[in-house]
Amino acid sequence: MTPRIKQLITEFPRHKNIDALLVTNDTNIRYLTNFPASESWLLVTKTRSYYITDFRYMQEAREGLKGISVKQYCQTPCVTLFELCRSLKVKRLGFDEKHTSVFLQKRLKGFCPRRTKLLPATGIVEILREIKDQGEINQIRDCLKLHHKALTMLSKVVKPGVSERQILSKLEGFVKLHQVGFSFSPIIASGPNSCYPHAKVTDRILKNNEPVLIDIGIDINGYKSDLTRNFFLGRIPPRYTKAFDAVVLAQREAMAMIKPGVAVADVDLKARNVLRKFGLAKYFGHSLGHGVGLDIHENPRLSCKSSSLLEPGMIVTVEPAVYIPNQFGIRVEDMVLVTEKGCEVLSDIN
Amino acid sequence: MTPRIKQLITEFPRHKNIDALLVTNDTNIRYLTNFPASESWLLVTKTRSYYITDFRYMQEAREGLKGISVKQYCQTPCVTLFELCRSLKVKRLGFDEKHTSVFLQKRLKGFCPRRTKLLPATGIVEILREIKDQGEINQIRDCLKLHHKALTMLSKVVKPGVSERQILSKLEGFVKLHQVGFSFSPIIASGPNSCYPHAKVTDRILKNNEPVLIDIGIDINGYKSDLTRNFFLGRIPPRYTKAFDAVVLAQREAMAMIKPGVAVADVDLKARNVLRKFGLAKYFGHSLGHGVGLDIHENPRLSCKSSSLLEPGMIVTVEPAVYIPNQFGIRVEDMVLVTEKGCEVLSDIN
Repeated sequence: MTPRIKQLITEFPRHKNIDALLVTNDTNIRYLTNFPASESWLLVTKTRSYYITDFRYMQEAREGLKGISVKQYCQTPCVTLFELCRSLKVKRLGFDEKHTSVFLQKRLKGFCPRRTKLLPATGIVEILREIKDQGEINQIRDCLKLHHKALTMLSKVVKPGVSERQILSKLEGFVKLHQVGFSFSPIIASGPNSCYPHAKVTDRILKNNEPVLIDIGIDINGYKSDLTRNFFLGRIPPRYTKAFDAVVLAQREAMAMIKPGVAVADVDLKARNVLRKFGLAKYFGHSLGHGVGLDIHENPRLSCKSSSLLEPGMIVTVEPAVYIPNQFGIRVEDMVLVTEKGCEVLSDIN
Repeated sequence: MTPRIKQLITEFPRHKNIDALLVTNDTNIRYLTNFPASESWLLVTKTRSYYITDFRYMQEAREGLKGISVKQYCQTPCVTLFELCRSLKVKRLGFDEKHTSVFLQKRLKGFCPRRTKLLPATGIVEILREIKDQGEINQIRDCLKLHHKALTMLSKVVKPGVSERQILSKLEGFVKLHQVGFSFSPIIASGPNSCYPHAKVTDRILKNNEPVLIDIGIDINGYKSDLTRNFFLGRIPPRYTKAFDAVVLAQREAMAMIKPGVAVADVDLKARNVLRKFGLAKYFGHSLGHGVGLDIHENPRLSCKSSSLLEPGMIVTVEPAVYIPNQFGIRVEDMVLVTEKGCEVLSDIN
């Protein structure tokens, strides 16, 4: 049993007092087992865990999973799951409503023996994932170190006359050279393209006197970095400088609030209020940030819609922005670790 | 309204007589609209369709979607969805149970106005996607043309002394040069690694007198190819040749059956029976093949579990295999188009 599975089991009483949990989400299984799961299920009981997979993954699973029994299913994993529940006398089986389709729920109900009750236990693994342990923090620090190397490389490459796609090509060469991956498809948005928050890379050639917004992430063994930087080529017009300064100030003031116990919604609001003073709040249409770990977007969200409070060990992006249609966009994004007394800007590496 | 949306609407009466459909799956939305959807919903009514998205994707959606209204949601897409349902007097709203989590279903129910009924309409878009139109067939032919170029390149690269990762690197260079993508993470499995059906690329160096199984796909604008080839370096031992010949025969006999009206389960069984004659059926643990289109694995499945019948316009892989633990694996995979009278092996390009 891994330490994370042990910790998970301690959460069972708070989740309808389940005595076992079905985990169907690949990333959650990976988090619990350190095994890169694919199209498989994990059954966690208080005494033992079972990885339920098919023929294609049996050998890797047997070799890669430590202290977890590997069970092969044939027709459907439901049969194997409930054979286990029956023999282990599972009475209250939890499942995650966010990772279970209505279709699958019907199948589970169809196969579930009379003595086992299916109970929603939603977000039970994700709650653990919100708080990063030292190993995870170190992994994200490693991503950021390499990310900074990529930024140094970019500062030599981002020049008028180069196309967005050529910059992407340099980045692809960089991650390949270092045998790592991207956290997500890079955003390289020049000139007016920068006003699309999730711009796609185009063949547009960078011109003089225009901004370039670059939002990339480095993925090492599943953990991720996520930073946005703005490059400006040539003479910077005052309307850009004004907006840039406002975004930087919004980020600084939001970060200054980050410490355990603070409501994420208040941090989001702070950034928005700073932008409002500059008349720019209406150009900031997304939330202020999000957790980063094995998923590029995970909890907690720095959002007015969330009721979460910050806790030590959380790692979040802080990314205020303004997008002025048909003109330009600016987003300044850093990654912050919530510490016991405040926060550390993980992306400040010097 | 796109021709595919028009066709979709003709399916409504067969699906509980719905008068509108909520589409939440990105690939299904892309199929219906030709727009690369992301984190958005599509509401299809008999007279008009609505793309419901958030701030981040508004501009691209407005520019990229033809004949479809774009609606921006703020808090949750549920509010916007049911405002539309209310104003359009939608009485019977279909949703796909496979693409709707239990969590989302609860939210939908919570927001749904009294006059609108939520009804399952599962697989309604996927059924259309099973039959490829001429444009789709041509796109897949283009993928296969380039795929063959990649195979020609590979035939020069796959040599003793080269590592699996170096071969991957050559393939990455190839797709980059041609500005295309992979359909999935390439499988390059040398020697005993080939006995893992979904082997991951390693640093293992190819040796003389051993097989290399290479399963790759080329993705051009979302459409995909998927072929597996086996290379043999040096002297081929008889036990390998015997298994290879059996797999090739299994493929040939299965393909000979493919024509409209034939049960996919029978095609799967045919390949299995051929392998059985050679005492190899027990080493063939997955189904015989799958549809390929915008998804790398889609319906129909050539599987004993499926009750589907073949129809003209379906494109499927035929991939019998044997995996002998700790020794070697062989998989021969081609792509076949079901025609009016039989089938065409799309991957036979000469």
